[in-house]
Amino acid sequence: MTDSQETLLQKIQEQGDLVRKLKAAKESSEKIKEEVSKLLALKAQLGSEDAAPQKFVLKTAKGTRDYNPQQMTIRNNVLQKIITVFKRHGAECIDTPVFELKEVLTGKYGEDSKLIYDLKDQGGEILSLRYDLTVPLARYLAMNKINTLKRYHIAKVYRRDNPAMTRGRYREFYQCDFDIAGQYDLMVPDAECLKVVTEILDALDIGKYVLKVNHRRLLDGMFEACGVSADMFRSTCSTIDKLDKSTWDEVRTEMINEKGVTPDAADRIGEYVRLNGSIELADKLLQDEKLSKSKGAVEGLEGIKLLLNYCELLGIKDKILFDLSLARGLDYYTGVIYEAVLTQPIKIGNEDQTIGSIAGGGRYDNLVGMFDSKNKQVPCVGVSIGVERVFSVLEAKLAAGDISVRTSDVDVYVASAQKNFLDERMKICAELWNAGIKTEQSYKKNPKMLNQLQHCEENGIPLAVILGESELKRGLVKIRNISTRQEEEVPRENLVQELKSKIELLDIKEMNGPLAK
Amino acid sequence: MTDSQETLLQKIQEQGDLVRKLKAAKESSEKIKEEVSKLLALKAQLGSEDAAPQKFVLKTAKGTRDYNPQQMTIRNNVLQKIITVFKRHGAECIDTPVFELKEVLTGKYGEDSKLIYDLKDQGGEILSLRYDLTVPLARYLAMNKINTLKRYHIAKVYRRDNPAMTRGRYREFYQCDFDIAGQYDLMVPDAECLKVVTEILDALDIGKYVLKVNHRRLLDGMFEACGVSADMFRSTCSTIDKLDKSTWDEVRTEMINEKGVTPDAADRIGEYVRLNGSIELADKLLQDEKLSKSKGAVEGLEGIKLLLNYCELLGIKDKILFDLSLARGLDYYTGVIYEAVLTQPIKIGNEDQTIGSIAGGGRYDNLVGMFDSKNKQVPCVGVSIGVERVFSVLEAKLAAGDISVRTSDVDVYVASAQKNFLDERMKICAELWNAGIKTEQSYKKNPKMLNQLQHCEENGIPLAVILGESELKRGLVKIRNISTRQEEEVPRENLVQELKSKIELLDIKEMNGPLAK
Repeated sequence: MTDSQETLLQKIQEQGDLVRKLKAAKESSEKIKEEVSKLLALKAQLGSEDAAPQKFVLKTAKGTRDYNPQQMTIRNNVLQKIITVFKRHGAECIDTPVFELKEVLTGKYGEDSKLIYDLKDQGGEILSLRYDLTVPLARYLAMNKINTLKRYHIAKVYRRDNPAMTRGRYREFYQCDFDIAGQYDLMVPDAECLKVVTEILDALDIGKYVLKVNHRRLLDGMFEACGVSADMFRSTCSTIDKLDKSTWDEVRTEMINEKGVTPDAADRIGEYVRLNGSIELADKLLQDEKLSKSKGAVEGLEGIKLLLNYCELLGIKDKILFDLSLARGLDYYTGVIYEAVLTQPIKIGNEDQTIGSIAGGGRYDNLVGMFDSKNKQVPCVGVSIGVERVFSVLEAKLAAGDISVRTSDVDVYVASAQKNFLDERMKICAELWNAGIKTEQSYKKNPKMLNQLQHCEENGIPLAVILGESELKRGLVKIRNISTRQEEEVPRENLVQELKSKIELLDIKEMNGPLAK
Repeated sequence: MTDSQETLLQKIQEQGDLVRKLKAAKESSEKIKEEVSKLLALKAQLGSEDAAPQKFVLKTAKGTRDYNPQQMTIRNNVLQKIITVFKRHGAECIDTPVFELKEVLTGKYGEDSKLIYDLKDQGGEILSLRYDLTVPLARYLAMNKINTLKRYHIAKVYRRDNPAMTRGRYREFYQCDFDIAGQYDLMVPDAECLKVVTEILDALDIGKYVLKVNHRRLLDGMFEACGVSADMFRSTCSTIDKLDKSTWDEVRTEMINEKGVTPDAADRIGEYVRLNGSIELADKLLQDEKLSKSKGAVEGLEGIKLLLNYCELLGIKDKILFDLSLARGLDYYTGVIYEAVLTQPIKIGNEDQTIGSIAGGGRYDNLVGMFDSKNKQVPCVGVSIGVERVFSVLEAKLAAGDISVRTSDVDVYVASAQKNFLDERMKICAELWNAGIKTEQSYKKNPKMLNQLQHCEENGIPLAVILGESELKRGLVKIRNISTRQEEEVPRENLVQELKSKIELLDIKEMNGPLAK
């Protein structure tokens, strides 16, 4: 809507108010008529009796998108698989409001705070849209004084980032988090988070992956051992985090030029971050002359050893890689950190697409305490599944024709070739709906047979009930199998039962059949 | 966080930046030391090594709330029942972003526009949080040039209203909409919407209800016949809408004093709005001297007759009441309007609670056209289920002890009475998870047996696997039924199979049993 239109609408509103006031005050009819004619003139300017047709470009907000039925079907299928895993591990579900008091988010995201969406001050509280689900969880635990919780939370979060929509990066996007809060024994819940990630990635079946693990205490100890001062740990860490997208040389340059790390220290860091392996590497590093002198490094390495040991017991050892280059950007991690990475590009149509990171998380033992007036801590560990990347892969596969989805579950279409059968169709639809059968019919009084059957084919509806005068007189209706085109007459009073058996048969076939999941 | 703390954090950041710059510039170590000591002094002021503990009151934004696991379980159960009905009617699912360009919402909500949440202008587009799901649907249809769609949309919407949280009225709340878009024959999709509402209210089983129906063309025709001028139809309509909460006298006074309706006209309107009935009333009104002269009134009455006829075919006639006092507040309705009302108070504990309206909707044929540059219309009809009221009733019942909910689905808890059994527990958990069995264990290395069994009881976990050294040596494990306390030894290698049969048995019992849904 243009400014001038908005002004016009404003004027119409005011003039309308004036007219109503005059009428209420029982002013003279001349006076009222005069103002009414002004009102009508204003409305005429608007060009249309109702409201003016839209003049601005119709779009969703930058970096956001609608989900159409195909996308929603993909999304719901993916989320259903993930929720099944979360529930298998006994996780409960919570939800929090889409906005928080701005103070809740302040000081939690370091440099990224500039990406937070603020609400306009309309009088009242100062609010911001949630940036992730972790800070709201911490606020929830502290506010309700909850000490233990295993929860999942699937909801949209908001970041004023530069969107890269074809790669699944949006300003409004889903997060899908599993976290365990509570004072427990070292690495036990941490290992379960890794198990949860493997079960989810296996269930989603989107390719081979590796789970990289590292430890913030080890990273800090490593920086210390390399001669970086303590106040530079976090910013050096966030530079290391770029190693998945940048070369070592680029990262080294940033460390030296922007973060103030000496070239010597950077080179020493470079020696460590190219290391990765398994429990043997942790053992070897415990013998490392420099690292073994750092309390943090030793604590981190012992933790990693314990974690890898538990992973072996959980049967997921071969999927884990201890990787010293893994850093994770967020400030609030205090212990183990992890990231799942797809190790092969995904085939989409004839092209290979590299996905990279698909899940990540870690331990954050101090976040809840930041919300508690007595700084009481609730240790937490968790993982976030990168569902937007999964959605975008599946959407690309759909677009390339590699997979297909059905957006409605309708089993039966009630049709007729003859005129004036709407009443009869309605009665039958009601009967089927009442019997719990997923049923549709045309909303037209006299639809063409061809259009009705075409609707069935386009929407994958397997069965049609076809009504005809001669059959109905004999107490019969026809059931048509849309794909085989076979038709069968059944007694009208047995229709529900006949359809139910046919649907059950089709469901069994589908479960065993080659149809796309 | 207080202002002074924020200032302090700001200073620490700046001082840190300075130190880093000095280091990067290889300044003298004295100079660097001096600035580092300033930095440390600032940090000391902060009182804690990490961040300062929270000083502001911990709360969610006004009019919003968290959903805890019990509330989420209730919510998910309710939504699942509703979705089942939507899908039974072949509805597809869509979603839209939580915010829209402000222009999209402008001029759609009349007086209520002041309740829209705006986002802060942070450079870029001017955005507002969605106020309902209907306007985003219309924008979606127009933007994508979609002419037919049967969709449901369940999502949160935002209104800066005065919250009445105990009665389920929030500033952030769920809407749950079913709409049919397309150029179809008169009243066919409209009647299906009513059928959908009855199926949902029956499935939710929250008490007796009546579906009130009326028609905007009839209301306009009625105003016309009573001598109200056309530019006052909408505002008179929104006064009539208050009849469910106010007496006729109050409504009459508002019409006369605030809306400028003459006392004569108001009294004539008063005669009509006390009428309600069925198809016979529509027939009688078609004979009414004044109404029969109004084209709109006749059109509305003919529409109501057709709708009531279809409702009879769909078997829901006894639930429908044609009610001339039903008006609905929103401006955009153009045809049939409806509202479902619970006719009896709901028993919560020892108290009766009156709920009133539980669903509402209607036809809006001009809304999509407002978004189309050529004003191309896509007629729509839909209904919105008042799920927040359903949630609040069930939450109150939960609080009163009338119902109970289980927030996790775990079937098996892996426990041990002996020390150093964590490794064995982990292996068994992994085996059960891999077999798809919902399993939990303690995250402590050496938990007490009593605590483990207590966890099962508190969380309704029906089975425990109990590990002991002597049994394991004989290749056995114990399965304990938590409620009967019966224990049974089974071969370790048959554990998965044994548990699966026991779970199946429990599931069957539960389905037939007296447990709360």
